[in-house]
Amino acid sequence: MAAGVKIRLSRAVAGEAVIHRMRPSSARFLLESPPLFLPLCTVSDMSTPDIEAVKNYLLSLQALICAALQEEDGKAQFLEDSWERPQGGGGRSRVLTEGAAFEQAGVNFSHVFGDQMPPSATAHRPELAGRRWQAMGVSLVIHPRNPYVPTSHANVRFFVAEKDGAEPIWWFGGGFDMTPYYGFEQDAAHWHRVARAACAPFGEDVYPRYKKWCDEYFFLKHRNEPRGIGGLFFDDLNEWGFDKCFAFMRSVGDHYIQAYRPIVARRKDTPYGERERDFQLYRRGRYVEFNLVYDRGTLFGLQSGGRTESILMSLPPLVKWRYNWRPAPGTPEAELYEVFLQPRDWLKGAV
Amino acid sequence: MAAGVKIRLSRAVAGEAVIHRMRPSSARFLLESPPLFLPLCTVSDMSTPDIEAVKNYLLSLQALICAALQEEDGKAQFLEDSWERPQGGGGRSRVLTEGAAFEQAGVNFSHVFGDQMPPSATAHRPELAGRRWQAMGVSLVIHPRNPYVPTSHANVRFFVAEKDGAEPIWWFGGGFDMTPYYGFEQDAAHWHRVARAACAPFGEDVYPRYKKWCDEYFFLKHRNEPRGIGGLFFDDLNEWGFDKCFAFMRSVGDHYIQAYRPIVARRKDTPYGERERDFQLYRRGRYVEFNLVYDRGTLFGLQSGGRTESILMSLPPLVKWRYNWRPAPGTPEAELYEVFLQPRDWLKGAV
Repeated sequence: MAAGVKIRLSRAVAGEAVIHRMRPSSARFLLESPPLFLPLCTVSDMSTPDIEAVKNYLLSLQALICAALQEEDGKAQFLEDSWERPQGGGGRSRVLTEGAAFEQAGVNFSHVFGDQMPPSATAHRPELAGRRWQAMGVSLVIHPRNPYVPTSHANVRFFVAEKDGAEPIWWFGGGFDMTPYYGFEQDAAHWHRVARAACAPFGEDVYPRYKKWCDEYFFLKHRNEPRGIGGLFFDDLNEWGFDKCFAFMRSVGDHYIQAYRPIVARRKDTPYGERERDFQLYRRGRYVEFNLVYDRGTLFGLQSGGRTESILMSLPPLVKWRYNWRPAPGTPEAELYEVFLQPRDWLKGAV
Repeated sequence: MAAGVKIRLSRAVAGEAVIHRMRPSSARFLLESPPLFLPLCTVSDMSTPDIEAVKNYLLSLQALICAALQEEDGKAQFLEDSWERPQGGGGRSRVLTEGAAFEQAGVNFSHVFGDQMPPSATAHRPELAGRRWQAMGVSLVIHPRNPYVPTSHANVRFFVAEKDGAEPIWWFGGGFDMTPYYGFEQDAAHWHRVARAACAPFGEDVYPRYKKWCDEYFFLKHRNEPRGIGGLFFDDLNEWGFDKCFAFMRSVGDHYIQAYRPIVARRKDTPYGERERDFQLYRRGRYVEFNLVYDRGTLFGLQSGGRTESILMSLPPLVKWRYNWRPAPGTPEAELYEVFLQPRDWLKGAV
């Protein structure tokens, strides 16, 4: 799939899905594409949103990430479902299960739209009332098999509300964050170094600001516990004008796989036993708790008639809960809580 | 522990818990107590709330249910944690894990109070503003091991808000509902027959009204799917005056074990294999989704500084999610969806 080429979503009966296997040839082609950070689409000079360009970028990003993950896995392949939303729009969900490296990897593209914002959305933003709107994004959660490989999440999204005779209202959001089961300073520093690199061309204050927002957002209040070691989180971004905002969203999207893949490669063959697997399944419970209790995207999706199976692809394939369990002091499991689940500057003193 | 005797909660540092094993002798004693539906406490004739009587009943109910479940399990024992809530009150959580019949059974008693209702609670009920309040209840979720035994949930609760020189404002709530993995008409009819019997002394319209409320409440909107085969659900009950309302709450509390235990006894030794276990773990995901996305008690508890480990004792010990899975037509798994996860009158034509 070449950059700039429109993707025709396979038509499917609303609520049902067409499943077909990605052809290996297309996956290979994607890996031979130009480096991701080069603009994939011609971006207009004006600061009016180029919706088609955003959509083309998102579809390309989904394809590139899937191709890279599939190559890293080396065993399983992504299956694709195209779906339509009865109220407008649809999406393309790709899921890889029971891989060598990945127990489950879900990478969603969606583009949904409507004639009217729901009243719940316009109550806080009355300027959106009466506008037609579109929301599009790529969202992914990767649950690795080996407990030494962290779970990762990334999302980039674009929203625009239009009305004849008025300037469009739009913004970008997104980010990526990582949730280790066993912590490694080297991995945390690499993850944040790539996050900082994604932000660097856009201003010195960008990484610290969005790193802090990420720490605040991915936090389980009922456990008084961060979800992981953070990364980047941004929302409502429009202050730089369309071109620069879009470039930033692309930079975040493009850097995700550079942040994650080397960590997967480094840890995926680490020997582990029952104990580590058990701790991984227990800690996955926190992921479920966060996504179902707090995550705005998940809750908005479920409440707004989104496709449940695509939204809940983020949930781990196997999870344990255990009443009032705590790791024994001095163990690697306790170290996760004491050292890694503490917001901190991961680049301070890191090489 | 005799009915009417005040329980002294073991003191514990706030947020920590004292764990000790229930003595088998006390469990045996409870089984030798008088039949449950006899009033366990002397109820005043006036219609002013007798808070101590409610508390004593709830503590006895927790003990009786635990004793009956422990006897039915025959292998594992309940462990008890007493805990205090820093903002006022505390509770007594009992959990049985890795039993013969029950993979996890959690039975909570809690009694929490405060000087001021939170603004979020008084926004909808301004008459509660400025009142000191107490909430107490027993809440339980039982996750059996054998997939032919349904999961069950019960809850009875009492709320009172007081102010000097004014009548107390109070209400009762509660109910019980059942979630099978493999459906049996016999079990569903028994469950609802006991639910109807619990309501019968209080009026002919009581069972149909609270049965309907249960069907409506335990519903996963994002799946368009009931959580199970229902039972009873009631809330804000004060219209009958304190004595009758309290008697109804006791009737619901007392009937739960009569509804559940015979089903456990009948199904717990049914042979099963990987397929049934797998379906059970998959369906448990729906339980997690309901409790974390919709359940008012869970969300209120997590948001109001409740004890997280006691609240999330409702979550199953092992759970699977699987992208876009559906049972094959004509299988017992499909029958669950087609026959049992459909609101219906389970007593129509039942013997």
